[in-house]
Amino acid sequence: MNRKEFRDLASPEAAREAIDSLSLEGGIDRVSLEDARGRVLVARLDAELDVPGFDRASLDGYALRARDTFGADEADPARLEVVGAVHAGEEPTIDLEDGQAVEISTGAVMPSGADAMVPVERTDRVEPRSTDSANGDAASETGDDGDEVLIRTSVAPGDNVMFAGADVAAGERALGPGTTITPRDIGLLSALGVDEVPVRAKPRVGIVSTGDELVRPGEALESERGEIYDVNSYTIAAGVEDAGGEAILYPHAGDDQDEMERILREAADDCDLVLSSGSTSASAVDVIYRIIEEQGDLLLHGVSVKPGKPMLVGRLDSSAYVGLPGYPVSAMMVFRTFVAPAIREAAGLPEPKAATVPGTMARSERYGEGRLRLMPVGLVQNGDGETLVYPVDKGSGATTSLAEADGVVTVDPETDYLEAGESVTVDLFSPDVRPPTLLGVGEDDPTVNRLLDGLENPRYLSVGSRPAVRRLREGVPDVAVLAGPIDRDLEADELGRWSREWGLVVRPGNPHELEGLADLVDRDLRFVNRTTDSGLRSTLEAAIDDLAADRGTDRQKLVAAIDGFDLGLRAHESPARKVIAGDADAGLGLRATAERLDLGFVSLGEQPVCVFANADRTAKASVRELAAALEEPPTEH
Amino acid sequence: MNRKEFRDLASPEAAREAIDSLSLEGGIDRVSLEDARGRVLVARLDAELDVPGFDRASLDGYALRARDTFGADEADPARLEVVGAVHAGEEPTIDLEDGQAVEISTGAVMPSGADAMVPVERTDRVEPRSTDSANGDAASETGDDGDEVLIRTSVAPGDNVMFAGADVAAGERALGPGTTITPRDIGLLSALGVDEVPVRAKPRVGIVSTGDELVRPGEALESERGEIYDVNSYTIAAGVEDAGGEAILYPHAGDDQDEMERILREAADDCDLVLSSGSTSASAVDVIYRIIEEQGDLLLHGVSVKPGKPMLVGRLDSSAYVGLPGYPVSAMMVFRTFVAPAIREAAGLPEPKAATVPGTMARSERYGEGRLRLMPVGLVQNGDGETLVYPVDKGSGATTSLAEADGVVTVDPETDYLEAGESVTVDLFSPDVRPPTLLGVGEDDPTVNRLLDGLENPRYLSVGSRPAVRRLREGVPDVAVLAGPIDRDLEADELGRWSREWGLVVRPGNPHELEGLADLVDRDLRFVNRTTDSGLRSTLEAAIDDLAADRGTDRQKLVAAIDGFDLGLRAHESPARKVIAGDADAGLGLRATAERLDLGFVSLGEQPVCVFANADRTAKASVRELAAALEEPPTEH
Repeated sequence: MNRKEFRDLASPEAAREAIDSLSLEGGIDRVSLEDARGRVLVARLDAELDVPGFDRASLDGYALRARDTFGADEADPARLEVVGAVHAGEEPTIDLEDGQAVEISTGAVMPSGADAMVPVERTDRVEPRSTDSANGDAASETGDDGDEVLIRTSVAPGDNVMFAGADVAAGERALGPGTTITPRDIGLLSALGVDEVPVRAKPRVGIVSTGDELVRPGEALESERGEIYDVNSYTIAAGVEDAGGEAILYPHAGDDQDEMERILREAADDCDLVLSSGSTSASAVDVIYRIIEEQGDLLLHGVSVKPGKPMLVGRLDSSAYVGLPGYPVSAMMVFRTFVAPAIREAAGLPEPKAATVPGTMARSERYGEGRLRLMPVGLVQNGDGETLVYPVDKGSGATTSLAEADGVVTVDPETDYLEAGESVTVDLFSPDVRPPTLLGVGEDDPTVNRLLDGLENPRYLSVGSRPAVRRLREGVPDVAVLAGPIDRDLEADELGRWSREWGLVVRPGNPHELEGLADLVDRDLRFVNRTTDSGLRSTLEAAIDDLAADRGTDRQKLVAAIDGFDLGLRAHESPARKVIAGDADAGLGLRATAERLDLGFVSLGEQPVCVFANADRTAKASVRELAAALEEPPTEH
Repeated sequence: MNRKEFRDLASPEAAREAIDSLSLEGGIDRVSLEDARGRVLVARLDAELDVPGFDRASLDGYALRARDTFGADEADPARLEVVGAVHAGEEPTIDLEDGQAVEISTGAVMPSGADAMVPVERTDRVEPRSTDSANGDAASETGDDGDEVLIRTSVAPGDNVMFAGADVAAGERALGPGTTITPRDIGLLSALGVDEVPVRAKPRVGIVSTGDELVRPGEALESERGEIYDVNSYTIAAGVEDAGGEAILYPHAGDDQDEMERILREAADDCDLVLSSGSTSASAVDVIYRIIEEQGDLLLHGVSVKPGKPMLVGRLDSSAYVGLPGYPVSAMMVFRTFVAPAIREAAGLPEPKAATVPGTMARSERYGEGRLRLMPVGLVQNGDGETLVYPVDKGSGATTSLAEADGVVTVDPETDYLEAGESVTVDLFSPDVRPPTLLGVGEDDPTVNRLLDGLENPRYLSVGSRPAVRRLREGVPDVAVLAGPIDRDLEADELGRWSREWGLVVRPGNPHELEGLADLVDRDLRFVNRTTDSGLRSTLEAAIDDLAADRGTDRQKLVAAIDGFDLGLRAHESPARKVIAGDADAGLGLRATAERLDLGFVSLGEQPVCVFANADRTAKASVRELAAALEEPPTEH
């Protein structure tokens, strides 16, 4: 085997420096105001006009000369001649003189000669008095409108008038370079009449997934050939867009060097950064390595972090290049730690607000490989409102771990042991991560799934009943769902229980005419079991014991006679699916599953399903909510 | 005047209830994985397949039967016959027997008969030994590949193998209803082969701005007619999209009832919610009021909040309807408080994380109208790292206040006085609001503008030099920029100073051949001044005093002889712009401004511009950064 070893791993700092040395910036876009939200201004924007552009009435009322109101009050109003009206959007034609007023609407242009206005509430419209005029000779002489107004307050020049430029004056600094445009900034830009702004172009990031075994989601998968769905392309693309970049997906590159080179070059030509990831086979890694080293500029190969060791940093043609590990969890962790900050920087976006949460380790965690560890963790609040932190690790090939995690604890290379109860700081995956309100573990069960749908943001790990008991004892989850024979010694509060019918899931119509467990032992049938972790398996084992007792024989003999007894599948539907696929004649399962999948069912009995709450969590709102939901006994459907 | 009075204002709670009673939900969209980020799943998604879909090698190495390795170690390896190889994406054709191994790549399908694998690092490939075989008879008998492998460790069944369904098993609950889809969830969906998900449709929100005086940004504005740019349309649209809705802008409706009804109905037909806002003239408000009351269903008219009193809630045809106040600040505050939560609810998005900041009032604030007050505030950190909170209020007609604010303090109707030093809680406009690093106040000056460009996220209020002195004494801003004669008694640290050339900005080529201040007094020229708040004005006043002394006359006489002396504009470029517009022959201004705008300039002298720091802020990072920038004396350009 021809393998590249990562002998001299770069430090995380060196990896960061290498990525910082790449230029990812994408230039300048001009975007319309409608598309400006969240974009980053490249240059200072000064006001090119006054806002408002004219002296503007702030209220509905009368424009007038302030000195005509001096001394006026409720008891002794000033009387002015009304010589016209101005509404918003109209050009005033009147030149106001002493003793005159003009009716004016909010937002209208103050007429020439007026220097203040009085709101309508402090005025009364009256008929002119021909004989005695409060304002002397002006009242009854001129005026087509013919009427007058009593002003019951005195105002100073400028009162209730917004002068031109009072809001923003031409030449003022409006928005600085680097401003991330908010709706409020869009308000300011609108007021200034700006309909297009120069913003940082989003860095274009090309994503190339490599590996002959990858299939795009939505397409048909041939599992027997070892095909798997491509997880990295869409996930990294979403991460790129979260970081302010524009993601461009390229066709899968297989492990063929010429094809891979062609695709990488095409991406490099079009993008500011090319990210590859994909096949974890050594051959593919080697191919990319060779292309970058020979055709481009390789700055760094391998970094001392876990997960994420196999990482490339370099340049290809005019583009920056980062090679991510193929395993989805590793790829996302490396992307998040090293690449996303560089994309944000290039996009001009500030580092997201420190979204960190203090917590305490829920259990001890050992790690001693001497690399910086980026440990995905889940969070749960204990009864005291303290945040417990537990590592989420479903193995390096797992694609789904991160969906079950809330953030990351960074463990430095010198720390090889974290004790339970130790304080740690969790970097949330994003500031808007909301840790689950409820953490449940236990049996995989369709009724549980339905119950969870009624809760807000629960997390449920269907680890099976046996591990659930252990985890409940360790004190991490809020609740555990246990099926089958239930341990009496459990120090936990029972929130509720129901029973489910279990048995053998068979092909529609039960073509082999199975009647019970004895058929599996006595006849040549292929069976599919559940794992020993599941409560269903425990109940099956008890039934085997009963059958052995009935027959006066050894249970081992019965078990040995069942083809497939030792093969245990993890989820409640999996055996049924093997029956559908024709890989088995019978599978251990539930009536509910058989009915849902239109299969036959041979009932072997009922088993209880119990929900227990961690004794210190019974006061938690989500636990109380679940308890309330359990008061109406759940029914299978 | 025919006015609708808001006599019975609804309580804020009643307004919330009225809006909650409107149904804004928009149904279900099916979106591709590429568009799923941030959308909200409508239904639970169970795994339809096992991930991985096959038993998968976790590493590069050899697939084998675990029992063939029992007892093997470095010193005493097991020797197995290599009978083939399987790579990722290939279907294995070999059926492994005792004593055999198959070379296998990470991610490849485990061949039939193998139950474990050993990583390549713990193996050595060797030539077959014809005479003595470590593994008995199997070694040299069969095998086209002809070679053998030494296994230097023992493994248990299942070691280094990821079994089918170990990551996700078919039938397992994958994502619950209401999940806001993150990049990590996209990873899970990809792994499950899901390329399209059912998500909540974004509520469609139609936006209708009303008012004859409104002009869309980018179009020409006739200020003399009282036209202003439409601020609300784009601002509310951005707010709608922030809240998870889809904004649709409709053409402006003027104040004509038929036209407005036609546009409102068109929007109601197409949208889940119609928002109107716009003209603040009473007539327009009345027209909308009448349309909703007569043609639709009016639930509420007027709410007891400030700003925002004039608010309508109702239904029109099949759409919900909310009428926002016309003033931009009021419109945004009402939108934010009452409408955005309803849009988020309909979009299925959780309320944004409580983005609140505790602070203390920087100065006292009186308010006694008995309405719930939504007070926009700015934030600044004092020397102790405490957050000071100051109200931002440029008057009800101001469009730009919110761009200068960071959040809102809600003051209950019973509180009519907030004392300086009182503790308040600020709701940030959004969780990602970053209060400015530096708060500066003072003279409007082009050099200051340029200096600010070099700082990260500064805020500068160009209130003029005189108010800046007062504000610096009140202790709110970090720095004040003062121009002209400088108060010696200021208890503040001078960070730096430069001088600027001031004088008269005139038309290009100085057609009136102005030579100095005396020309303004002695000749019939139209002049434009700056406000008394500006340092430029203070220096001009001093020059007038000098001229009066020279002539042995009264300064009042000189001032009275200058046409336009009393008209003071707020920004440093404004007088120059009046000269360009032909409204004046000379304006008070700077050489820098004249040069930038290609105007003539008559120099009257130099004046100092000084940057002072609040004595308790000199250790602040941003203040030190500004001080450093000032060490190279700024030059006008």
